[in-house]
Amino acid sequence: MSIPSNLPLRNDLAGEEPYGAPQLDVPVCLNVNENPYPPSPAVVESIVERVRQIAPTLNRYPDREHMELRRALAHYLSKESFVDLEPEQLWAANGSNEIMLQVFQAFGGPGRTALGFAPTYSMYPEYARDTFTAWETVPRKSDFTLDVDAAVKAIAEVKPSIVLLTSPNNPTGTPASIEEVEALLAACEKADVEGAPQGAHPLLVVDEAYIEFRRPGKPSATTLIDKHPNLAVSRTMSKAFAYAGARVGYIAAQTGVIDSLRIVRMPYHLSAVTQAVALAALDHTDEQLAQVGHLRQTRDDLVQWLRAQTYKGTPLTVADTDSNFVFFGVFDDRDFIFNRLLDRGVLIRDVGPDGWLRVCMGTDEEIAEFKKAFVEVLRLAEQR
Amino acid sequence: MSIPSNLPLRNDLAGEEPYGAPQLDVPVCLNVNENPYPPSPAVVESIVERVRQIAPTLNRYPDREHMELRRALAHYLSKESFVDLEPEQLWAANGSNEIMLQVFQAFGGPGRTALGFAPTYSMYPEYARDTFTAWETVPRKSDFTLDVDAAVKAIAEVKPSIVLLTSPNNPTGTPASIEEVEALLAACEKADVEGAPQGAHPLLVVDEAYIEFRRPGKPSATTLIDKHPNLAVSRTMSKAFAYAGARVGYIAAQTGVIDSLRIVRMPYHLSAVTQAVALAALDHTDEQLAQVGHLRQTRDDLVQWLRAQTYKGTPLTVADTDSNFVFFGVFDDRDFIFNRLLDRGVLIRDVGPDGWLRVCMGTDEEIAEFKKAFVEVLRLAEQR
Repeated sequence: MSIPSNLPLRNDLAGEEPYGAPQLDVPVCLNVNENPYPPSPAVVESIVERVRQIAPTLNRYPDREHMELRRALAHYLSKESFVDLEPEQLWAANGSNEIMLQVFQAFGGPGRTALGFAPTYSMYPEYARDTFTAWETVPRKSDFTLDVDAAVKAIAEVKPSIVLLTSPNNPTGTPASIEEVEALLAACEKADVEGAPQGAHPLLVVDEAYIEFRRPGKPSATTLIDKHPNLAVSRTMSKAFAYAGARVGYIAAQTGVIDSLRIVRMPYHLSAVTQAVALAALDHTDEQLAQVGHLRQTRDDLVQWLRAQTYKGTPLTVADTDSNFVFFGVFDDRDFIFNRLLDRGVLIRDVGPDGWLRVCMGTDEEIAEFKKAFVEVLRLAEQR
Repeated sequence: MSIPSNLPLRNDLAGEEPYGAPQLDVPVCLNVNENPYPPSPAVVESIVERVRQIAPTLNRYPDREHMELRRALAHYLSKESFVDLEPEQLWAANGSNEIMLQVFQAFGGPGRTALGFAPTYSMYPEYARDTFTAWETVPRKSDFTLDVDAAVKAIAEVKPSIVLLTSPNNPTGTPASIEEVEALLAACEKADVEGAPQGAHPLLVVDEAYIEFRRPGKPSATTLIDKHPNLAVSRTMSKAFAYAGARVGYIAAQTGVIDSLRIVRMPYHLSAVTQAVALAALDHTDEQLAQVGHLRQTRDDLVQWLRAQTYKGTPLTVADTDSNFVFFGVFDDRDFIFNRLLDRGVLIRDVGPDGWLRVCMGTDEEIAEFKKAFVEVLRLAEQR
């Protein structure tokens, strides 16, 4: 890709490439944390019926406020996270990517900083770049858990307008406890914001893209929204909900946050079809989430199995994970492992700190393929 | 709507409201330039079938590059505008709103300016605001045609990174001739860009949202893409194509412009469902556009009819229009006209210069309702 110099591309975008994992046509794709189980025939029928209902109205603009969808999402959270939210406290967009972009558009900008906890989701610096927001990170501990003391200190010192906590974290899978979220909230509620009027405090955004895969009994940060106007919790239907192709992300917060996003959202950002298709899946929540328990078990089994493998004589290190993926290492040449797996038709992700790799949970057959290929590749690595 | 002061909302967004025409439930909606004719039963079946095909794959992310859709759009332009474009010269997004936001994200930003020709589309300053781009305008002539000399001079003086020409213009309906587009292109190709390296020239974006309603024989700006790397032409399926609810906008340009947008686009911005639904409509181009000729005739008839009406003893002024709406005035109290029409169940749009109103083409019955109500309201205005 090359941009001719006669085009006035933003100076800081020169040499940049489009973000995204390679989309390769290989037998076993375990690289983008999708749910491997497709919508059931009943859900497919529900999608088709919902679309049939709205298709004759497609000459008209959709409901800008997508109230029916926001009601359905509030209902879902009441069952999934035992939290009582009003539809006005929900907001949806074309993937949590667009949600996050709206957050950065409303609360970021030149002279402001967003703060994250590295290693973390690699899109955050892109949202920052796209909105001219500075991006800073505090390192996590060596086991990828949050360094709460360092985080609290950084919030006071950096005076960020946005604090991004990913829980479970991507690419490591590490959950944050509700007590850790509360500690960050307390720090935010005491902190100033560089570039904002006196009295404004940082917004804490907890990115719960993978939260449905957490261990049972762990509360979602949505349960804290009631008491914290500076908290927002983003979610997605792309992962546990098995709906990555439909592009539906959403965020829950008190209405001040939601109204801020409404100022910067594109009018009619969410199509009538997307609204209908999202509602169809939410009509069948239990079916859509049917495989989550099995994927959790697959994950826990794979963590155990990986911990029993050795790389050049040393047992692998595998991060504790509450997500649908497993982060493991440390390889002195991760490209070798990644490429030899790819040779065998297994695509995983080379992301995060050097030496680590991420594999997401597939079907039983896909995981068996991964294990078979990985054993072969480990043997090859020994022989180098 | 009020945002609590403890939230770090961007300083320049304080007091802002979400953009958008009121969504009111009234019998005759002629306010947002929709096509009043719904998709035919055959198109509805095609939509349903396309969605049925992709629904079982919705657990997977969509094709980020939406190549099948870009091929279909290139094919459409080859028939509609007699222009030979490669799929790589097309790019689609969730409405031309998102297209324009991507243009501003790639080419705008702090220290840069976008230039338009007022009165024009009221979203442009919002894209500018959302990307920290300055927004300047050159006035159109009193008949709303482009003041080419003033435009050429402003391009040289302002050194904008983006020049936005809406043709047909919104809210006035005024077309720009291909010679006018060429004059602006020539000016851009000689001009520098403030905030960009030497050698960069302004990007001219011709917004052809309403181009299918133009008079026969007038060429689209897409025919100039071949020779002009600094030209981009945006289009939408929301208007003539009767697909506002599906949210599909697109842009045509040489690949340098498209690749620039690919850098800033959100990954997977266009859902698998949106891609399928857009393809379904493009399979039935003739049916979707079937009413365009009739809407053109409706418009020309309404222009004549309005020119025969008087307001307080003076004939109305009606702008020449190549669009599916008519811009008319001048009322010393347009709110009165707007609100008395609304009392009668007819919603139009109070937008643009003071004293003017915009009405878009409805079905024959809707236009008859509008005329009937408008005559009553003119009589009321006389009696005030």
